[in-house]
Amino acid sequence: MTKIGIVGYGNLGKACEKIVMSRDDMSLVGIFTRRDPATMTSPYGSAFFRQDDLDRFENEVDVLALCTGSANDLVDLALKQAEKFNTVDSFDTHARMRDYVTALDKVATEHDHLSFVGIGWDPGVFSVMRALYEGVLPEGNTVTFWGKGVSQGHSEAIRKIDGVLKGIQYTIPKEEALEKAREGKGDTLTTRDKHLRECFVVASDDADKSAIENEIKSMPNYFADYDTIVHFITAEEFDRDHNAMPHGGLVLRSGSVNGKEENLEFKLTLSSNPDFTASVLMAYARCLKKMHESGVRGAKTIIDIPVGALLGDRLDAIAKFV
Amino acid sequence: MTKIGIVGYGNLGKACEKIVMSRDDMSLVGIFTRRDPATMTSPYGSAFFRQDDLDRFENEVDVLALCTGSANDLVDLALKQAEKFNTVDSFDTHARMRDYVTALDKVATEHDHLSFVGIGWDPGVFSVMRALYEGVLPEGNTVTFWGKGVSQGHSEAIRKIDGVLKGIQYTIPKEEALEKAREGKGDTLTTRDKHLRECFVVASDDADKSAIENEIKSMPNYFADYDTIVHFITAEEFDRDHNAMPHGGLVLRSGSVNGKEENLEFKLTLSSNPDFTASVLMAYARCLKKMHESGVRGAKTIIDIPVGALLGDRLDAIAKFV
Repeated sequence: MTKIGIVGYGNLGKACEKIVMSRDDMSLVGIFTRRDPATMTSPYGSAFFRQDDLDRFENEVDVLALCTGSANDLVDLALKQAEKFNTVDSFDTHARMRDYVTALDKVATEHDHLSFVGIGWDPGVFSVMRALYEGVLPEGNTVTFWGKGVSQGHSEAIRKIDGVLKGIQYTIPKEEALEKAREGKGDTLTTRDKHLRECFVVASDDADKSAIENEIKSMPNYFADYDTIVHFITAEEFDRDHNAMPHGGLVLRSGSVNGKEENLEFKLTLSSNPDFTASVLMAYARCLKKMHESGVRGAKTIIDIPVGALLGDRLDAIAKFV
Repeated sequence: MTKIGIVGYGNLGKACEKIVMSRDDMSLVGIFTRRDPATMTSPYGSAFFRQDDLDRFENEVDVLALCTGSANDLVDLALKQAEKFNTVDSFDTHARMRDYVTALDKVATEHDHLSFVGIGWDPGVFSVMRALYEGVLPEGNTVTFWGKGVSQGHSEAIRKIDGVLKGIQYTIPKEEALEKAREGKGDTLTTRDKHLRECFVVASDDADKSAIENEIKSMPNYFADYDTIVHFITAEEFDRDHNAMPHGGLVLRSGSVNGKEENLEFKLTLSSNPDFTASVLMAYARCLKKMHESGVRGAKTIIDIPVGALLGDRLDAIAKFV
């Protein structure tokens, strides 16, 4: 039985809670929040506690899943909680990964704990692909594409425009960029070359739609340098077709060995970004407990952990999956 | 510097030799063969030795790459050589993997060595996918497809037919089966449901082509129960278009978490099966040396080894690939 504590109760925390509830080898100690626990409710009747009270659960929680929002909060939280707990998180600021791992490794090791960082799909499953690709086919180049998926930041930018009632933006890999990557010419592609932005907008009755479309397409940083498509739809269509959080992407490698061209391609199609991220997080949380029990300490990323450690009996897993 | 010994000089052994020659952190101690070394030549002037003389290279070889043909030979060879050497192989009889790992683990551990088994693409890279998929998305089903690729056994069966001068058979995943797998209905598909067989045949001038086509399509075990396509081509076309060893395949998982459908799909497209297999084998050989030096002993499969171990400096790899 892996006893889980969840810090934060947004989309990711809720998805983790639901998974823990569905697994008979996991149990939920409680949800820890900065809000007033008395105001919080869960469809499962889970217990809520103040984040400041975490210390007294030191001996009750096997793994603390850090599901707070911003990267800064997450780093501070992890460095503090690794003194008392094993932690798992989906920290996703690639540029800060090295420093974060280094700092957390020190704290976790000193306090006899184990922390897994960057556990999700990117970083996460995509990181496994990038590392494996580089290892097994050293000459070549890897290109990561994101989407089709919702960008919260771009959706919010649309919603701030006058006359827009509802708006959502999907990032979509461009077919011609995928082809270039498959042909081994992906190394010069920028994020901008690789993706287009598709927007669905509900405008107020009196709004000037062509002005809204212009304002979106010319918005600096967000849309101006991208191929952007804008659709106007009704509120009914919006509520029916755009209430999910799909995401995903591709990790392509085109390379060669002994002069022969070889291609590796991984594609992820998620109907729910937070639920899949939570699924990866909970799988590694269970594995973390086992590895901690076997004596592993410090901070690890997904590429430091053998995939076999996610599964049950080693020889059974070898027979079934190798 | 990783000092490699290669046992066997077929397609795989030759591809390994070529890779070792191209890497400045690997060197080749020699190629060990059951044939008379005096009759062997290499485009690189590599040294050939009798397989029976392996013992005297005990202190010169870091990793012995076992590139012999049949699974039986390979098991006997590995169990013997693990007494003196670290070994890496691409043993591919899935049904015997558990027993092989168990037996080799005992020998390697007793003799203070490390052996990596089933290193290639299936088993190998595909095993990583199957294990990772199962771990991160426990509810679902995984389907493996092979091809487009040459089947040596089926090609030989064609070449034995009267009137056939040259023949080759490609195994190809069926589009409708891929669709079923993507929809989560792949668990009932048999190997037969999943693949079709495409044959290219050069017939002698006086041969009855429709009789040959009939004989192929009705051949028990090999073709009778498959969708089989037969093309007759000229010897020139055959030599021009069918002299490579392409292969590859797909590993699909369709599953759900918290009631949301999620799909994972890995696709490998190889223009040369032996060269890519050798590339994986040599990547893990280098990693094996490092892991042996750090104290790891016994027999490991690809799912027991973190992908990060294939790369150089750990923090650099984390910064670049996580």
